Amino acid sequence: METPSHTLDSTFAALADPTRRAILARLSSGEATLTELAEPFEMTLPAVSKHLKVLERAGLVSRSRVAQSRPCRLEAAPLREAAGWVVQYRRFWEGSFDRLDDYLQDVRRGEDAGGEGW
Amino acid sequence: METPSHTLDSTFAALADPTRRAILARLSSGEATLTELAEPFEMTLPAVSKHLKVLERAGLVSRSRVAQSRPCRLEAAPLREAAGWVVQYRRFWEGSFDRLDDYLQDVRRGEDAGGEGW
Repeated sequence: METPSHTLDSTFAALADPTRRAILARLSSGEATLTELAEPFEMTLPAVSKHLKVLERAGLVSRSRVAQSRPCRLEAAPLREAAGWVVQYRRFWEGSFDRLDDYLQDVRRGEDAGGEGW
Repeated sequence: METPSHTLDSTFAALADPTRRAILARLSSGEATLTELAEPFEMTLPAVSKHLKVLERAGLVSRSRVAQSRPCRLEAAPLREAAGWVVQYRRFWEGSFDRLDDYLQDVRRGEDAGGEGW
């Protein structure tokens, strides 16, 4: 596989936390400052900042060096690598459900929710 | 999202290790015993067994209770959930490819017009 192992390691590790996934979901609708990101969580700023650092180290989030608020931005390249890895196994879940239509309908529902399917 | 958070947590955490991903890759070509799974790795059986337990707890691997060798089998449902989550972000990496496409087309147009590309 072309993707360096350590990249997938850090991507999957970063995604293994609901707060970090929620931060990425928030950033998918636009840039946000740390304070804005922290709002929906019952967490201190330092706690959210710690999660943000994990996402930054994994290359999933970048922060502007310009503005004082240093807005955060979603970086999707590692997600693409992760998707590439997981999708290698698609024939298994298609086989196990044995209903490709169900899967495609799920993807379409994802499209309606703002994604674009495969 | 319908997927319980803890499922995605344990799936992504299980995938954040190259040995565990290699075990899943091996199992994608058929069932295998612990001994067979351990062969390609320079690891002790207990070390591989530990990784296997993480995969089992995440629902990514099941083990037969019948045969004494307890062959392991890939279970793809959690991978499907993981793919479903990651694919929500596809428009972001496709966006960056679209921009790359535009750029390459511009370069090609430059060549057609008698320029020299770069």
